[in-house]
Amino acid sequence: MRIAIALFEDAEELDWAGPWEVLAAWARHWPGDGVEIVTVAETLDPVRCAKGLRVLADRTWEQLGALDVLVYPGGQGTRAQLGQERIRERLRSLHAGGTLMTSVCTGALVFADAGLLDGRPATTHWASLELLATLGDRIDVRRGARFVDDGEIITAAGVSAGIDVALHLVARLHSPERAAEVRREIQYYPEPPV
Amino acid sequence: MRIAIALFEDAEELDWAGPWEVLAAWARHWPGDGVEIVTVAETLDPVRCAKGLRVLADRTWEQLGALDVLVYPGGQGTRAQLGQERIRERLRSLHAGGTLMTSVCTGALVFADAGLLDGRPATTHWASLELLATLGDRIDVRRGARFVDDGEIITAAGVSAGIDVALHLVARLHSPERAAEVRREIQYYPEPPV
Repeated sequence: MRIAIALFEDAEELDWAGPWEVLAAWARHWPGDGVEIVTVAETLDPVRCAKGLRVLADRTWEQLGALDVLVYPGGQGTRAQLGQERIRERLRSLHAGGTLMTSVCTGALVFADAGLLDGRPATTHWASLELLATLGDRIDVRRGARFVDDGEIITAAGVSAGIDVALHLVARLHSPERAAEVRREIQYYPEPPV
Repeated sequence: MRIAIALFEDAEELDWAGPWEVLAAWARHWPGDGVEIVTVAETLDPVRCAKGLRVLADRTWEQLGALDVLVYPGGQGTRAQLGQERIRERLRSLHAGGTLMTSVCTGALVFADAGLLDGRPATTHWASLELLATLGDRIDVRRGARFVDDGEIITAAGVSAGIDVALHLVARLHSPERAAEVRREIQYYPEPPV
């Protein structure tokens, strides 16, 4: 099971860091499950994220190889990707090859721009729901959904929803029991104080 | 208001990325609040975190300067810090200088090892509660607390609790209203699927 998390300029930090923590905790603490997780970016140079954090990817897209699952974060950096044929082709090719495509936050805008969400239910960050509807053909925008699993494509709501959708991935790809174990490992029993 | 988040070898990724997202979203979206947030590490070389992610700090400890708040993550890397007089002195000096000291997860072990938690209530990751009690003098270990605010020192539970304690910091340092706005920005309305 090979999982990659995409990194790009102005990706929102928690969009990728939440799924990274969940999926890497799965891979690390249950090695018998055979999960490999890597980060992928255009180059191996530092990637500056939306809030200024700099991170280094493990692989370039060219080095990536076969992939079972792609997690695509959102952030301001998604806007510059809209309309880029190279990125559209990359995502369509992965989808056509059977990779389970999962977006977090405004990563859904890039999926929509590639045509992946045409005719499907999907969600995104609350502030981009209207924009999402304009980027594809008959996208059934699910306001209020934490995430939407449409089989081949999964989309999640904003930022912190990446943690929830990553736990869903563990449950779907392995078992709800394993997902609950990962949840316990990262002590994900939220108590927002406000 | 200067806030630093510590990075070190084998720091747990979400321990620092959760608070980073919350506090950097505050700093970025409400510039009038005058919040500056930076990451700090021993060097400016890549830091390899507990699950393998590589990240670059903004400042070394020597470059850091005056600080209002320090957020100290946990992770396997905390074990190698126990007993290190240089790290103990660094933390004691910041505390003595009035910096609000905040730990996430097993970052509390390093605070305890520096003597900062003597006679105080505190918490940590569920798997390290017993160890925490042995590292200081009369630490009142609060099993089950999401975070413990003892005035000068705040400690949080494991990994994802960093998001909750960071929202508490926004509420304490500014207002519950601002914390609720940041919460909305990062769409932190958790729905764990398992």
